[in-house]
Amino acid sequence: MTTKLDVLIVYAHQEPSSFNGALKDVAVKTLKSQGHNVTVSDLYKMNFDPTASKSTIQEPDNEEYFNFQEELKKAASKGKLPSDLQAEIDQVLSSDLVILQFPLYWLGLPAILKGWLDKCFVDQIAFDIQKKKWFDRGPFSQKKIILSFTAGGSESYFSNTGLFGDMNVLLWPIHNALRMTGFQVLSPQILYMLNTTHQDRTAMLEAWEKRLVNIWTEEPLSFVHIDNFTE
Amino acid sequence: MTTKLDVLIVYAHQEPSSFNGALKDVAVKTLKSQGHNVTVSDLYKMNFDPTASKSTIQEPDNEEYFNFQEELKKAASKGKLPSDLQAEIDQVLSSDLVILQFPLYWLGLPAILKGWLDKCFVDQIAFDIQKKKWFDRGPFSQKKIILSFTAGGSESYFSNTGLFGDMNVLLWPIHNALRMTGFQVLSPQILYMLNTTHQDRTAMLEAWEKRLVNIWTEEPLSFVHIDNFTE
Ligand SMILES: Cc1cc2nc3c(=O)[nH]c(=O)nc-3n(C[C@H](O)[C@H](O)[C@H](O)COP(=O)(O)OP(=O)(O)OC[C@H]3O[C@@H](n4cnc5c(N)ncnc54)[C@H](O)[C@@H]3O)c2cc1C
Ligand SMILES: Cc1cc2nc3c(=O)[nH]c(=O)nc-3n(C[C@H](O)[C@H](O)[C@H](O)COP(=O)(O)OP(=O)(O)OC[C@H]3O[C@@H](n4cnc5c(N)ncnc54)[C@H](O)[C@@H]3O)c2cc1C
Ligand SMILES: [Zn+2]
Ligand SMILES: [Zn+2]
Repeated sequence: MTTKLDVLIVYAHQEPSSFNGALKDVAVKTLKSQGHNVTVSDLYKMNFDPTASKSTIQEPDNEEYFNFQEELKKAASKGKLPSDLQAEIDQVLSSDLVILQFPLYWLGLPAILKGWLDKCFVDQIAFDIQKKKWFDRGPFSQKKIILSFTAGGSESYFSNTGLFGDMNVLLWPIHNALRMTGFQVLSPQILYMLNTTHQDRTAMLEAWEKRLVNIWTEEPLSFVHIDNFTE
Repeated sequence: MTTKLDVLIVYAHQEPSSFNGALKDVAVKTLKSQGHNVTVSDLYKMNFDPTASKSTIQEPDNEEYFNFQEELKKAASKGKLPSDLQAEIDQVLSSDLVILQFPLYWLGLPAILKGWLDKCFVDQIAFDIQKKKWFDRGPFSQKKIILSFTAGGSESYFSNTGLFGDMNVLLWPIHNALRMTGFQVLSPQILYMLNTTHQDRTAMLEAWEKRLVNIWTEEPLSFVHIDNFTE
């Protein structure tokens, strides 16, 4: 039995020859060779605009009082989003697996990728609070997502006794935000770059390739089910 | 004895009549009436570009391999940054207190504000790892910073048993990132908006006003001193 997946790689690096670029290339090659359908959103190359600006909304519903969440929802429902943003949303909707490939900036997502989330995860598409369709009941609950990222520091900086703080704690806000849409979050692929040799990095690329072959069968991280929370 | 402060308010909302706009206006009025020097960076209004794009660097030092951190550092040292970005960095450098005023987006900073950090906190200006000038020994150790933000949810969503998770944990990556530059981080001002009445919100604005009068004398949050970490 084979499973053909639609994979979206959202890639946030300016330099094709960067290590992030190499990680992205390995993913494209490996997943394609498995027969999957792979699409790359190269955010810098496409000049993706990450700001939740008024100019995102061509015909605002409320001319007097700009509410980004409302306007985004309404523009999406009327098919009036900028075409490049609509294309990103369509990619997410048709994907089975999303890979976010990025370098860590200030213990978090680079702005261009944060803005991709801010703008693609539209109310009533990526979640619906009114109908309580979020978290385990969210629209994306059949999809998987994984953070694959490089960090300038070494693993010890991100340990429980390290200066940057425990990596699990640092990733929790991002993982829980992704969870709001229902996404099954896979264990992150973390590449600590400090003092690595070329050989170390080659091994990292091979480990990523190896993991990708069976990534679809991985169990996602466990989170407390939404039924256990009171509202 | 009076202390005249230089205060920078970095404001990330599209709508002047928003509650974030009201919070910003209260801060400007209150701090000015105390004799402080107040500057507002209205990120959406100034069309601040938050992306760490190649176009930030007019004359890249390395034409073949783009490394954002390196190029930003070099462009800054040569006075070759875009003038609007240089102006933001100068504002941070001359400030005693920075207020980040924003609505919470996906459990974190809106992209436009995240990118302000990504681009203003330049290597060798905001931190210097080589010389170990960061955290408690960072360049901004005489400055204070505070997150003042609204959340769409109620406080219970951000409790230890809430769906979004404990607010202290969600804020840790942001606070620790700010700490890297040396900033003394004040206790955040958090405005939970769900089911608030006009009266509730008026009281929130008054509480903010009251706090701002003595904010400079507040003790910052405690963090473990850098000397207690091994490297
Ligand atoms: C604004 C900003 C904020 C940051 N904040 C943080 C932070 O909070 N914490 C932190 O830890 N770091 C931080 N960093 C550092 C950043 O995370 C690293 O610079 C980044 O992760 C390195 O990834 P890269 O793809 O850019 O690496 P590159 O610099 O492109 O590559 C790293 C090395 O890999 C080599 N390489 C490239 N391709 C291959 C290949 N195919 N095989 C083998 N080797 C290869 C390169 O030659 C280079 O030696 C920050 C950086 C910036 C710009
Ligand atoms: C992309 C995105 C992601 C989001 N993610 C999250 C999330 O993860 N978690 C979460 O909790 N929320 C989230 N939100 C919701 C967001 O945080 C709230 O919409 C925002 O914080 C509300 O602040 P505002 O200034 O926009 O409020 P507004 O909508 O402008 O105002 C709120 C109320 O205050 C009133 N008001 C305005 N001025 C005054 C005044 N002077 N006195 C009294 N009342 C006044 C307004 O009339 C309105 O009724 C998200 C929103 C977006 C767009
Ligand atoms: Zn599919
Ligand atoms: Zn001063």
